[in-house]
Amino acid sequence: MSGTSRALKRVVVGRAMRSDRLGDTLLPKRLALPIFASDALSSVAYAPDEVLIVLGSAGGAFAFTHSWQITLGVIFVMAVVVASYRQNVHAYPSGGGDYEVATVNLGRRAGLGVASALLVDYVLTVAVSVSSGIQNASAALPFVRGKEVIFAVLVVVLLTAMNLRGVRESGAIFAVPVYLFMLGVFTLAVVGFVRKISDNLPQAESAQFTLGPQQGMDTLGQIAMLFLLLRAFSSGCAALTGVEAISNGVPAFRKPKSKNAATTLLMMGGIAIFMLASIVTLANWTGVQMQDPDHPGNLLLNGKPVENYHEDTVLAQLAKSVFSGFTPGLVFIAIITGVILMLAANTAFNGFPVLGSILARDGWLPRQLHTRGDRLAFSNGIIALAGMAIVLIVLYDAETTRLIQLYIVGVFVSFTLSQSGMIRHWNRHLRTETDPVRRRQMMRSRVINGVGAVMSGLVLIVVLLTKFLHGAGYAVAAMVVLFFLMSAINRHYERVGRELTLAEDDNEQLLPSRVHAIVLVSKLHKPTMRALAYARATRPSVLEAVTVNVDHAETEALQAEWEKRQIPVRLKIVASPYREISRPVIQYVKSIRRDSPRDVVMVYLPEYVLGKWWEQLLHNQSALRLKARLLFTPGVMVASVPWQLDSAQGHEERVYDGPAPGAVRQGR
Amino acid sequence: MSGTSRALKRVVVGRAMRSDRLGDTLLPKRLALPIFASDALSSVAYAPDEVLIVLGSAGGAFAFTHSWQITLGVIFVMAVVVASYRQNVHAYPSGGGDYEVATVNLGRRAGLGVASALLVDYVLTVAVSVSSGIQNASAALPFVRGKEVIFAVLVVVLLTAMNLRGVRESGAIFAVPVYLFMLGVFTLAVVGFVRKISDNLPQAESAQFTLGPQQGMDTLGQIAMLFLLLRAFSSGCAALTGVEAISNGVPAFRKPKSKNAATTLLMMGGIAIFMLASIVTLANWTGVQMQDPDHPGNLLLNGKPVENYHEDTVLAQLAKSVFSGFTPGLVFIAIITGVILMLAANTAFNGFPVLGSILARDGWLPRQLHTRGDRLAFSNGIIALAGMAIVLIVLYDAETTRLIQLYIVGVFVSFTLSQSGMIRHWNRHLRTETDPVRRRQMMRSRVINGVGAVMSGLVLIVVLLTKFLHGAGYAVAAMVVLFFLMSAINRHYERVGRELTLAEDDNEQLLPSRVHAIVLVSKLHKPTMRALAYARATRPSVLEAVTVNVDHAETEALQAEWEKRQIPVRLKIVASPYREISRPVIQYVKSIRRDSPRDVVMVYLPEYVLGKWWEQLLHNQSALRLKARLLFTPGVMVASVPWQLDSAQGHEERVYDGPAPGAVRQGR
Repeated sequence: MSGTSRALKRVVVGRAMRSDRLGDTLLPKRLALPIFASDALSSVAYAPDEVLIVLGSAGGAFAFTHSWQITLGVIFVMAVVVASYRQNVHAYPSGGGDYEVATVNLGRRAGLGVASALLVDYVLTVAVSVSSGIQNASAALPFVRGKEVIFAVLVVVLLTAMNLRGVRESGAIFAVPVYLFMLGVFTLAVVGFVRKISDNLPQAESAQFTLGPQQGMDTLGQIAMLFLLLRAFSSGCAALTGVEAISNGVPAFRKPKSKNAATTLLMMGGIAIFMLASIVTLANWTGVQMQDPDHPGNLLLNGKPVENYHEDTVLAQLAKSVFSGFTPGLVFIAIITGVILMLAANTAFNGFPVLGSILARDGWLPRQLHTRGDRLAFSNGIIALAGMAIVLIVLYDAETTRLIQLYIVGVFVSFTLSQSGMIRHWNRHLRTETDPVRRRQMMRSRVINGVGAVMSGLVLIVVLLTKFLHGAGYAVAAMVVLFFLMSAINRHYERVGRELTLAEDDNEQLLPSRVHAIVLVSKLHKPTMRALAYARATRPSVLEAVTVNVDHAETEALQAEWEKRQIPVRLKIVASPYREISRPVIQYVKSIRRDSPRDVVMVYLPEYVLGKWWEQLLHNQSALRLKARLLFTPGVMVASVPWQLDSAQGHEERVYDGPAPGAVRQGR
Repeated sequence: MSGTSRALKRVVVGRAMRSDRLGDTLLPKRLALPIFASDALSSVAYAPDEVLIVLGSAGGAFAFTHSWQITLGVIFVMAVVVASYRQNVHAYPSGGGDYEVATVNLGRRAGLGVASALLVDYVLTVAVSVSSGIQNASAALPFVRGKEVIFAVLVVVLLTAMNLRGVRESGAIFAVPVYLFMLGVFTLAVVGFVRKISDNLPQAESAQFTLGPQQGMDTLGQIAMLFLLLRAFSSGCAALTGVEAISNGVPAFRKPKSKNAATTLLMMGGIAIFMLASIVTLANWTGVQMQDPDHPGNLLLNGKPVENYHEDTVLAQLAKSVFSGFTPGLVFIAIITGVILMLAANTAFNGFPVLGSILARDGWLPRQLHTRGDRLAFSNGIIALAGMAIVLIVLYDAETTRLIQLYIVGVFVSFTLSQSGMIRHWNRHLRTETDPVRRRQMMRSRVINGVGAVMSGLVLIVVLLTKFLHGAGYAVAAMVVLFFLMSAINRHYERVGRELTLAEDDNEQLLPSRVHAIVLVSKLHKPTMRALAYARATRPSVLEAVTVNVDHAETEALQAEWEKRQIPVRLKIVASPYREISRPVIQYVKSIRRDSPRDVVMVYLPEYVLGKWWEQLLHNQSALRLKARLLFTPGVMVASVPWQLDSAQGHEERVYDGPAPGAVRQGR
């Protein structure tokens, strides 16, 4: 990063904070709610649609009858999950997310399972949220229609760029849209309710149609009907994604952390349930019909299939009819829904590197992901996340209905393992706890978490049963691959760790007897002279300059100049019959080691350092490769003696110093 | 390269040769002719087609009348160019190609112009030859039709793989197809001639059609007609590409090199002229009609446009009618023509890295391209060539007729500059030469080269005039870009060279007074202990271990173990308020330099070395980045102290040892 852009960045995001001052950034509830809730709340923008679409495959009447039952089921699960996570928040004020809870209580393998599931789900969060956001916004922005994929990809690219630049989540910029979204849906609900009781709530635009059952769905047997209901329920459970976010972020809250976090969680749950119930009620009242975009043709007008009809999302259809004729109302709902879904996608950009960092700390992912402020590693994570999300968006044509089939598996794997872990947690604590009041609290928590575990497990089974062949299978496959990949990485680290560990009494204090220093010379110029001077300053036992005879004429010229300048170091010429550089040097070094095995060989390489990356392309390649090869030779040290060219001045300070993504939600 | 595949390769391509034994590989004329002539001879497979297509745009009758005139013109130019290059071969037995001749006689800029032109033309040689090869082969392989682009790309990929693996050009594998091609065309000519005089030569399959003039081409004014004839002549001059190849390869010939090379050149010219004349004659006798594949629709049968007609190449049509009914004859001609065109494309894969190596030696391209056996750099060149050729093939649908519009400009820029340079060459030598016999020879040569220069210049003007807007403009643009890019690289090298050059009396013998050694420690494991031991062995003036305090707990544990093990080196702890690693170390190093500017600081980095590339991804990233940063700090040496893990055993010998591409034609 150049000086100018660093200065500009300081203006935009503020100076980097010292770690002992990070306490100042803790979040009050009014900021924590929007930051942690955008993911969970935004899912009400697509969950009702998916319920109606699945039910609608058996006809509009079927959807009308059963959508309420499904919604009640979803709300019930949501209440149970919120109650369960309130226990987590109290038990793990350190912000132990599902990964930590599972690892501590069920073992490392279970933790790894949760991690694999969450990594997959982060990708899907981006893909689903952005696709749905585009779909919602398109109600107000007709030019987006038919180009959803391009716009969705553009949004992902934009989010990537923002996060690569290190934009922080905290502050009003992120809170305002969430509150505006709540306000929007609340207004929609109230206006709709008032118009309903005053009996002038208009019908939705899709109410004019008849939604016929899809082929073979007109006469459902009882089992088929149950299966359809369960599939609709699975889709509806998409509303639960993001509920766990707060449990990862307890340290980011102001004190009392656990209590504030639990309260925020409750508020979030209440708001989500209210929104979901309102939207489904209004959809029923206004007669919204949703056909499956993948199996169109059963939406009929006067018995004939409807052509050229652009199906808006449920929220958009509701806004159209509730605010009948008042366009700004529709535009506001459509745009703000689009925006909050982008924010939901952005939470994945924050959560993904945080999880990656924790996994790296525990040796499941490359170590460099762990270091905070290791910008490059975080960048790679962000780019990987965005890349995979873009692949999914393109593959599934940015259609929420198709992407949602892969979603939720991960969330419920994570819910189930986490809640099961909590039962163990309470069991363990009950073994030592004697205070009867606290014991009673713990037993109560254990019951709640138990119900949560059973409920999540059941939903997971339902999701797998009803969606495995519709796409959930791919998500499971991706999790399995990640699981084994991370296991392999871990095994590698453990093997290396064992190889490197010192025995108790192994101090390897045995010093090499002598240092044999070699300065590699190709030409006599300033870097060479400096390398010679520095090498002489270290006063080695033996010092010689070595050049590889690739071109006779050049070597003779070098020898002549060497003598002319009376350089007080012997110049050794190494033959290179194949005109190579690396191999003769390595063989010479090895011959020294053979002759005196207790010597250590120090190879000095004169290097010149350039400031621009493209300048580096033009230089030093063979030196770099030789260096890499020499490192494989035992008993050798390789010393780079740099000569800084003009263009390299001042580059040593160019180290990134901004905040890491996800720092705010970790409370760091 | 693993041991197995290296062994396999030894079996396939033989052991690497020592440079002092390379003399054995010099080429006898019977091998030199096919190796150097495949490019020039293969162009007769498309040049007649292009002449007929251009002329045919004014109707079949026009083509019939004028194709002979155009061919005579092309043959005349070919004879002049061959005669001219015979002078080059005698004057520059060192194998000075056009680049060297232009550089020596007209200056570095002219040489660079030739180089840019040749680089562009190498790409076009691949694209045109492969496209035409596929087109010719498709006459015998009908499944290729309609999938020309895919097959052409596959062939380029195959050639790339072959050349990346280091297949050598010499030997029968490359000579046999060239001789078979000559045999095929010769047989075609003889059989055709015999059948013509015995009056039973059948008509070509396209002779049944009437080729009408394209829109607006029915009544040509004189200027338009002249322009059309010149365009046809330009296209016909494609037959001259590759004629210069021998002049680059004189050192590869057996002695007397120049004489053998000149003889081979003459043979090649004679064969090419014979083939060209035969093909055009037969095409006229059999009534071959060629329509422009880009402007179809004027090929008529009974007054109606012909539909579903696959236009074969001229050679294929001739083979069909001359060998009437005898399918093996057609298959042989079609396949062998395809093969020789692949060989022609392969010559570009050999010539491109050779030219790149020469340009790198002269500082126009990155230095690493120069080193023979620097496999990586050659590979990059080969991949770049293939990539650009593939882009052209895809862009132009593998249609020879469209690609040919970009071709030839480069060849004739190069011819013109080279021949002009030769005039200067003789002028210079005539100034000092006194022997009248030799003077007369030189003056004769000067006249020949003068005619060559004027002729090439005229053709170049004609090509630019008639084809600039049809695509030649792009080729010119690419040359200009390359010209300026290479100039910029050269300026960079010159600037760096000036910065690094030692003054006459500047020996920088001033030794730093003391060495301050620092061992960077993050953990106490075997690599750290070895780094400490090695650093102690160098007996520096000051030695300390330095650790960065990123995590308090870890740092305290390190301190405790340090004391427990009684390591006799002071452990200095550097604060890191922002939890970074690089910056605190750099600042500490700078503070040492500030306090004692005459000291040199030696930073020892313990590193562990792994054998697999993916293992490297999991380690050492922050150490690598710190190393890169430290090199920008003046007065610092960075020493890597490697610890070889088990997986790294035996990797130091993995250096490439095969022949470099193009080695054979350079006579090395």
